[in-house]
Amino acid sequence: MQQTLEQLIEACYSLTGEGNCAEYIPLLAEVNPKQLAIAIITHDHQVYQAGDYQALFTLQSISKIFALALAVMDQGEAKVFDRVGMEPTGDPFNSIYKMEIFSYEKPLNPMINAGAMVVTSMIKGRTAQEKVERLLALLREMTGNPKIDMVEEVYQSEMEHANRNRALAYYLKELGLIEDVEATLEAYIRQCAIQVTCEDMARMGLCLARYGVTDRGTPLIPTAISKMLKTFMVTCGMYNSSGEFAIKVGIPAKSGVSGGILAAVPNRMGIGVFGPALDRKGNSVAGVKLLEELSKRFDLSIF
Amino acid sequence: MQQTLEQLIEACYSLTGEGNCAEYIPLLAEVNPKQLAIAIITHDHQVYQAGDYQALFTLQSISKIFALALAVMDQGEAKVFDRVGMEPTGDPFNSIYKMEIFSYEKPLNPMINAGAMVVTSMIKGRTAQEKVERLLALLREMTGNPKIDMVEEVYQSEMEHANRNRALAYYLKELGLIEDVEATLEAYIRQCAIQVTCEDMARMGLCLARYGVTDRGTPLIPTAISKMLKTFMVTCGMYNSSGEFAIKVGIPAKSGVSGGILAAVPNRMGIGVFGPALDRKGNSVAGVKLLEELSKRFDLSIF
Amino acid sequence: MQQTLEQLIEACYSLTGEGNCAEYIPLLAEVNPKQLAIAIITHDHQVYQAGDYQALFTLQSISKIFALALAVMDQGEAKVFDRVGMEPTGDPFNSIYKMEIFSYEKPLNPMINAGAMVVTSMIKGRTAQEKVERLLALLREMTGNPKIDMVEEVYQSEMEHANRNRALAYYLKELGLIEDVEATLEAYIRQCAIQVTCEDMARMGLCLARYGVTDRGTPLIPTAISKMLKTFMVTCGMYNSSGEFAIKVGIPAKSGVSGGILAAVPNRMGIGVFGPALDRKGNSVAGVKLLEELSKRFDLSIF
Amino acid sequence: MQQTLEQLIEACYSLTGEGNCAEYIPLLAEVNPKQLAIAIITHDHQVYQAGDYQALFTLQSISKIFALALAVMDQGEAKVFDRVGMEPTGDPFNSIYKMEIFSYEKPLNPMINAGAMVVTSMIKGRTAQEKVERLLALLREMTGNPKIDMVEEVYQSEMEHANRNRALAYYLKELGLIEDVEATLEAYIRQCAIQVTCEDMARMGLCLARYGVTDRGTPLIPTAISKMLKTFMVTCGMYNSSGEFAIKVGIPAKSGVSGGILAAVPNRMGIGVFGPALDRKGNSVAGVKLLEELSKRFDLSIF
Repeated sequence: MQQTLEQLIEACYSLTGEGNCAEYIPLLAEVNPKQLAIAIITHDHQVYQAGDYQALFTLQSISKIFALALAVMDQGEAKVFDRVGMEPTGDPFNSIYKMEIFSYEKPLNPMINAGAMVVTSMIKGRTAQEKVERLLALLREMTGNPKIDMVEEVYQSEMEHANRNRALAYYLKELGLIEDVEATLEAYIRQCAIQVTCEDMARMGLCLARYGVTDRGTPLIPTAISKMLKTFMVTCGMYNSSGEFAIKVGIPAKSGVSGGILAAVPNRMGIGVFGPALDRKGNSVAGVKLLEELSKRFDLSIF
Repeated sequence: MQQTLEQLIEACYSLTGEGNCAEYIPLLAEVNPKQLAIAIITHDHQVYQAGDYQALFTLQSISKIFALALAVMDQGEAKVFDRVGMEPTGDPFNSIYKMEIFSYEKPLNPMINAGAMVVTSMIKGRTAQEKVERLLALLREMTGNPKIDMVEEVYQSEMEHANRNRALAYYLKELGLIEDVEATLEAYIRQCAIQVTCEDMARMGLCLARYGVTDRGTPLIPTAISKMLKTFMVTCGMYNSSGEFAIKVGIPAKSGVSGGILAAVPNRMGIGVFGPALDRKGNSVAGVKLLEELSKRFDLSIF
Repeated sequence: MQQTLEQLIEACYSLTGEGNCAEYIPLLAEVNPKQLAIAIITHDHQVYQAGDYQALFTLQSISKIFALALAVMDQGEAKVFDRVGMEPTGDPFNSIYKMEIFSYEKPLNPMINAGAMVVTSMIKGRTAQEKVERLLALLREMTGNPKIDMVEEVYQSEMEHANRNRALAYYLKELGLIEDVEATLEAYIRQCAIQVTCEDMARMGLCLARYGVTDRGTPLIPTAISKMLKTFMVTCGMYNSSGEFAIKVGIPAKSGVSGGILAAVPNRMGIGVFGPALDRKGNSVAGVKLLEELSKRFDLSIF
Repeated sequence: MQQTLEQLIEACYSLTGEGNCAEYIPLLAEVNPKQLAIAIITHDHQVYQAGDYQALFTLQSISKIFALALAVMDQGEAKVFDRVGMEPTGDPFNSIYKMEIFSYEKPLNPMINAGAMVVTSMIKGRTAQEKVERLLALLREMTGNPKIDMVEEVYQSEMEHANRNRALAYYLKELGLIEDVEATLEAYIRQCAIQVTCEDMARMGLCLARYGVTDRGTPLIPTAISKMLKTFMVTCGMYNSSGEFAIKVGIPAKSGVSGGILAAVPNRMGIGVFGPALDRKGNSVAGVKLLEELSKRFDLSIF
């Protein structure tokens, strides 16, 4: 496995030249696009890492998965899905047009920004910081890494360019789906700024692969909820390339515009990938290819 | 299992009163909505049936799965997906607006009507009949049932109400995606009119569950293609309820407006369900509930 | 004329029962819907009034006409139309979807809310109050009525229900079309809360009918700009009923959700109508009919 | 006037290099784009012509105006507008998406292709040829030119590239708005292929400017209908530049992809312009500029 990972990193590395770092967040735009890394932790506790695996990066949209976990644990499935749908959209993550033209009363799913903000607003906590602290606590417990934290300057940088998300949030407020726009936005953008390594992500993925039980045996997320998360990862986890990724890779995965991809192969392994050069839909160019090759090599598709 | 199926049929039967038969096709509108049936064939060749399992019904959209299988076997994956995309849409099956407003040059996926027509046009065969004969041959081989055939009068009935599909087809012709509109439409509507039982569908589902190998051991569809089919079933198989179905049931499945649902649980079983009373999105009301309960009872989710 | 107006008011009065007051602004919802009034001032200074002509009401969207006049006088046509388009949309006034799906970089016209906010932001004035004071000054000069003023409690009421407009405003800020969202929103909603009578509106309409010269002979708006305003009134003045109104009435007119309609018949007369019961598109039900009959009776169509 | 026209032609001629002939119809694509012509006939029967005024070209979308006149004279306003709306759309002429997403049951106006086909289908006549013959008879009478006829080869050329229109037509058939798709399409495309000169168009425009009475004093179109036609010309006559054209030129006008523009200044004159180099929305680049300058020079705006 270790050797294969190193070969795949080498084979996919040239693709880092075919994408660009996310440009709408200044701090992300400054990242070196020529990076590629992977970490895998298997069901039997083996850890494999290759490439620039010591790199730190922020979760960005990957945090939507765990915010959803927390909101559903806090409020119950019924209450959450009363305010957000379950359908993939085929549209970009910051899209809102479908809600207007079809008079939908809730965002289509929890993986697009509008839906994720509704979800975050439902996490228990009196303030944005409290919500984020609870999310951090979950992730620290999940990874066994107490140092996982939020990067204040990434949060600040994103907050300064948050007008499209603020527009979505006021639209949601008008519909009665959220109450406090600024608090929701703060919590949402803070959760995006949580910093991890590939190994952290692999451990999170493994917890999902083990149906919510950490690699140290602690049950953190109920089985049914962990299955739900993996389902959303398949149908809407890779932005509006989710369908293609499901065909070509076949593994539940969630990407972020930082270039991270978290993947979970049920009963087998958790995977963390990092490659900040993105394709036009917002997924890591080299990271997607790496997972495609890995899936073929080890027959990881769930289908 | 047999007893469970009978209990589930009984428990879900009342839901047949909460939907309606498809109304836009006169022959389908005449079907008795108060029917519900299921057939399951397991990996070890056990056959279980319950409810109105002797009912005959037409595949309708379920045929899209096998038309895609044949087209990809005939033309190769690259050529087919050059003309049709892989993304779920969240839109109704007869939708076209996204192609116009986003200037897409191909339908978003092979499970919406526009995409399915492109796929059917790529099945080898000089005439519509030849294409359909080849599809019938595939399904007869897959089920071991040589009597599977097309119902001419259902075809005629649908052909008389095919103007929306004809509109889509001319739109596709304008884009250079199909050539002969009437021949494509004929093949597409004929394949929809192929008649089966729940047991036939269960056997088809089992073949997909066994990665393309029939229950008699004959390899019919290459492994990679059978995985691709199951992936499309998850992301777009249940019309614009696919996301919700994936969350609640978690099994690759494809429904048709006749009320049929074909499902495939990898390595475990094929399932055929029939319940002609549909919800507003075109799925069998009672059939979906039946599968949801079944999935919970036997832990069938792939996630 | 006087007798005709009284007859028409009587004939159209029953239509006040077929609409409803705007409901999304609490103070407007409390207005008595059973009112109908008209005032006409002709080119030769005759004043005719009928119905509940002493009623006071707020301009609402009618203010968009004069905000546009002021912005163009302040900044020049080129600069204003660099940030807002000239095309009618066929969509509701609070719509935004077209900007997203077609990646438009500016609102389609200055009569939909998004466009009007961009326009208002371009009126000179360091604060929202200064902008509104300048608009009030223009309207007082135009009507010779120094008592025209803003109703603070209507402003407050609308400001408490402004989240959809705030969503639009942040969308515009993201595009670089406005800078200060709250200041723009304040100016925009304050201008909507300017209170007038039918006679005031008739005098405003007469000024437009006289190509920007008041009935006392003072040139207030350049000829070219006054023509431009009347053109927008024809193509987009009556929300997404503008086309039908142009066909049936044929007079440049602008309506507001308070039930007001301001109309200008070039070289002939200004008209103010008030009827707070609205149709589904936001126009006064009885007011539109009144203008239709009036136009036929006196051959007022410009076409 | 004659001298002014010659100056304007010269001044605008260079703009012929900034557009392209319509490319989707082969015969139109072969036209020399470097042409510009104008003809004006005034209320007092003066004829002025300048530029390439002897050029022959086809009416294309300009025919929609007279097809509408005929349909309304044949069926009455109520029946026609039961099947087609009155609202401008801001969308391209071959657009259909709005009907789908908003579930509209009729095309938004008679100037977009979908609406024009519905209108043409309502012209009396047992066959497509009969409908077109009646339209030709109207135009010959209007212009006093018995030689106006349809160009068979333009019709054939367009018919070979009519799949997008055919798609629209089947969509309309599904909605019950037209019956015979091919007959409607034939009549619609034949009417587009009617060939005229600028002088012919000027005479048609004059008839509209004179409220339906020809320059020889024959009443051809009822006054109310002629006003309605001019209104549609203002709100939707110049494709999705109608709003901008109304602001900048202010004259009722209808353009076609052949490069023709027919304009009618109420009580004053009819105008025919020809300049086949089109802008991206389908209007003659130089022709629009020519009309803008002409309108300013002679104060022709109706607003």
